[in-house]
Amino acid sequence: MLMPTAYDTLLGLIREMGQLESVESVLDWDQETFMPPNGLPARAEQLSLIAGLVHERRTHSKVGELLAQLDGQGDFAQAANVREMRRTYERATKVPTDLVRRISKVSALAKAAWVDARSSSNFTAFAPHLAELLELKREVADRVGYQGERYDALLDEYEPGATATEVATTFAALRQPLSEFVRELAAAKRQPDPSILTRHVPRAAQERLSHRLAEAIGFDFQSGRIDVSVHPFCSGTTPGDVRLTTRYLENFFPSAIFGTLHEAGHGLYEQGLDPAHVFTPMGHAVSLGIHESQSRMWENFVGRSRPFWEHFYPDALKLFTSLADVSLDAFVAAINIVRPSLIRVEADEVTYNLHIILRFEMERELIGGKLPVKDVPAAWNAKFKELLGITPPNDRAGCLQDIHWSMGAFGYFPTYALGNLYAAKFFASIRKAIPDLDDRLRRGEFRTLLDWLRTNIHRHGQRYRAGELVQVVTGAPLSIDPFMTYVRTKFSAIYGL
Amino acid sequence: MLMPTAYDTLLGLIREMGQLESVESVLDWDQETFMPPNGLPARAEQLSLIAGLVHERRTHSKVGELLAQLDGQGDFAQAANVREMRRTYERATKVPTDLVRRISKVSALAKAAWVDARSSSNFTAFAPHLAELLELKREVADRVGYQGERYDALLDEYEPGATATEVATTFAALRQPLSEFVRELAAAKRQPDPSILTRHVPRAAQERLSHRLAEAIGFDFQSGRIDVSVHPFCSGTTPGDVRLTTRYLENFFPSAIFGTLHEAGHGLYEQGLDPAHVFTPMGHAVSLGIHESQSRMWENFVGRSRPFWEHFYPDALKLFTSLADVSLDAFVAAINIVRPSLIRVEADEVTYNLHIILRFEMERELIGGKLPVKDVPAAWNAKFKELLGITPPNDRAGCLQDIHWSMGAFGYFPTYALGNLYAAKFFASIRKAIPDLDDRLRRGEFRTLLDWLRTNIHRHGQRYRAGELVQVVTGAPLSIDPFMTYVRTKFSAIYGL
Repeated sequence: MLMPTAYDTLLGLIREMGQLESVESVLDWDQETFMPPNGLPARAEQLSLIAGLVHERRTHSKVGELLAQLDGQGDFAQAANVREMRRTYERATKVPTDLVRRISKVSALAKAAWVDARSSSNFTAFAPHLAELLELKREVADRVGYQGERYDALLDEYEPGATATEVATTFAALRQPLSEFVRELAAAKRQPDPSILTRHVPRAAQERLSHRLAEAIGFDFQSGRIDVSVHPFCSGTTPGDVRLTTRYLENFFPSAIFGTLHEAGHGLYEQGLDPAHVFTPMGHAVSLGIHESQSRMWENFVGRSRPFWEHFYPDALKLFTSLADVSLDAFVAAINIVRPSLIRVEADEVTYNLHIILRFEMERELIGGKLPVKDVPAAWNAKFKELLGITPPNDRAGCLQDIHWSMGAFGYFPTYALGNLYAAKFFASIRKAIPDLDDRLRRGEFRTLLDWLRTNIHRHGQRYRAGELVQVVTGAPLSIDPFMTYVRTKFSAIYGL
Repeated sequence: MLMPTAYDTLLGLIREMGQLESVESVLDWDQETFMPPNGLPARAEQLSLIAGLVHERRTHSKVGELLAQLDGQGDFAQAANVREMRRTYERATKVPTDLVRRISKVSALAKAAWVDARSSSNFTAFAPHLAELLELKREVADRVGYQGERYDALLDEYEPGATATEVATTFAALRQPLSEFVRELAAAKRQPDPSILTRHVPRAAQERLSHRLAEAIGFDFQSGRIDVSVHPFCSGTTPGDVRLTTRYLENFFPSAIFGTLHEAGHGLYEQGLDPAHVFTPMGHAVSLGIHESQSRMWENFVGRSRPFWEHFYPDALKLFTSLADVSLDAFVAAINIVRPSLIRVEADEVTYNLHIILRFEMERELIGGKLPVKDVPAAWNAKFKELLGITPPNDRAGCLQDIHWSMGAFGYFPTYALGNLYAAKFFASIRKAIPDLDDRLRRGEFRTLLDWLRTNIHRHGQRYRAGELVQVVTGAPLSIDPFMTYVRTKFSAIYGL
């Protein structure tokens, strides 16, 4: 009988953690979709138990011993799994359980305070909670350790390997040209008619078209499903079981159509992960930013393109009868309307990154102690005016709009904008690799694009970190140029610039 | 700081086991309802992991130590929790892991062999697997231990505390009068018209009525839901989260209507368990037999009664338009048709127990080594003729019809008939406690009945074993008289005897 190697043993533990996390996913998904309301207290106990079991395994001394034996050995899959397990183990063991519990308690109170503060539009009521969370998160950063600045340790939780300096450099390059381009579009003579988007479309028709689009781009209903939840999400347990949600607003169909395409983009990534590496980092998405690149690509680069609707619009009209008098051009213009607006989650693909730049700059200063908590509303409003040209009328529509800070999730926001930039960078490479891409989209042929993504991105799992993946796939590091070129080309055409 | 008592520590472990089992329930439910087909391999890994975690806890040496300290202490809740934990611990530790694994492996093969054997109606192909399972289950019985006979140790798994002798005595008393009554009904001049039951009723109408009936009898949709699965079941995670399934056959509406009432009966039991004792034996159903008493009571004693349909039939006709010309009496007669038939799961409430008596007598002899496996088909057919007056044309419609033996579930069948007998016994007490019950049913008032069940049965959890519960609630031990009186009264009226 052969003795299992140290790596076999570690892999067994990693897989067990992965299985427990996949159980958490099922429970979370169920809670948001089908769980009856009175199931909540028991669900909280179940989730807390499973989270405890995961934590026990993550921090088990055996893992530390095995990791010490495994430095730099094995093939690339082993190297990636060991690297990521080391990162997880180190983060988990460096942060004491007591600190984790304090954060969990403080953020539960902060979340409740944020709900109240937002509804009364009164930042002052939320301020002490934010201050406390910032203090605790600084402690986390100090425990975890960092090379550049504290913010790096927090950002690393969502975008492993990324640094505040890199992100800041990228965003600094982006803020000015993007902000100016938004002003150019606002001044254009040709403007889309947004009233098209609020025409009544019955729920059943929206559901039929959403599902049809998801299936057309390659979402496999044998390995996934689409249900309804208040906030759409994608829950990927394993490549064979990926659950999306969407929502249907009868007076705003883009919510369902583009929400579904967005989540299906996440879902295609999850379905494309290598099943041979299920429950291990090699079978896991790279980062939130890379995940977002996939959802944004299918939602915006493909799903809001003219070629895409050249294929689907005639069919869509059979279902969306209230749009019968709307031309293809008017429709494409309407779904691509660019308008500086107050709320991030409602922002278009051009202004969206400006919302993120604002949050990144502010939370970096907050963690760094350069921005006092009490000055948040004023700083928010000034930055908003600078970046988007408008001033929020109150805190509810300003610095209190997002839940993230109340959960202590500092370092999460940049991944949204990185997703857009990664998507543009990948898409530029895709256009070179598939020169007739637009013709394919016009024919409803998405397989070639999906195959490219499968081969170049999905199948790798966590073989590479995000920055490295961009380098390997596109031959160059991330830059803002592909994104600026993409938006300039696309929106100049729509706005007749 | 107070030291936790031994009981507090044990209770913590019990609750953790209960939470893990409730996670298993959610995963099982999801697998049968919404899981996409390709989710199966990962689901198997998740379930196997959770089962392993439960087993580790059940057999943990700490549990044994705590149990040793706790003999006979505390209030009745503590006494019940300790008693049931001791039973679980002893069963789990007495059966070696290797034997559990062998059974699991052999029964996986046996199940596959049974599927094939059934489809070719060839018992011989299944016989060696059955013999192997019987041998393994005899070993389990020997390990677990028993006072009377081996079968007791197996029966105890499903109906804790019941013995083969008790069950045999009860069934021996029942078989003759019940068999004769079936013959009397068959000879009656007035016979129901079964063709009513196969009239076409659209799925939507069946769904609407089923849900309405479930809600009317008290099933709380804030604490549960009804979905669709191939084989209907009730999965009770906690009193706040009880999931039923049903199925809709457009050419056989009783499947949905009475299937839903049956599962809702299980569901009312689960929703009525004491939430203060969630995740512990005191918050758990007594036994399969008592569970079945609740489902059978709502399905048959209430749901197939004339007063019930006096209330609901006019409304039902608005949905079930194909029954427009069917009188209330003809409808009530049709849903209560009694006919000796080959298949247990399709049997009516009078003949049903005869199917069970046959299985109990045979499996007791099989475990006892008195019936050779090769003689099963002949023995089955002879007994069938004796009890039901007909002879199965082949093994598929005879001894190969049920999955239970292929899973090694010997001792399970009797709980179905016990459920009917318990139900009749409880119902006789209920009629005394609520003399105007029929008037209440006629008014659609189910609250008084449900309150009685809540107080006298549901709330107790596992405070009592089944036999003891019957004694406490009805003042006398189980007997067949209430059941025989119930069927004689009800069916004599319907058949005009």
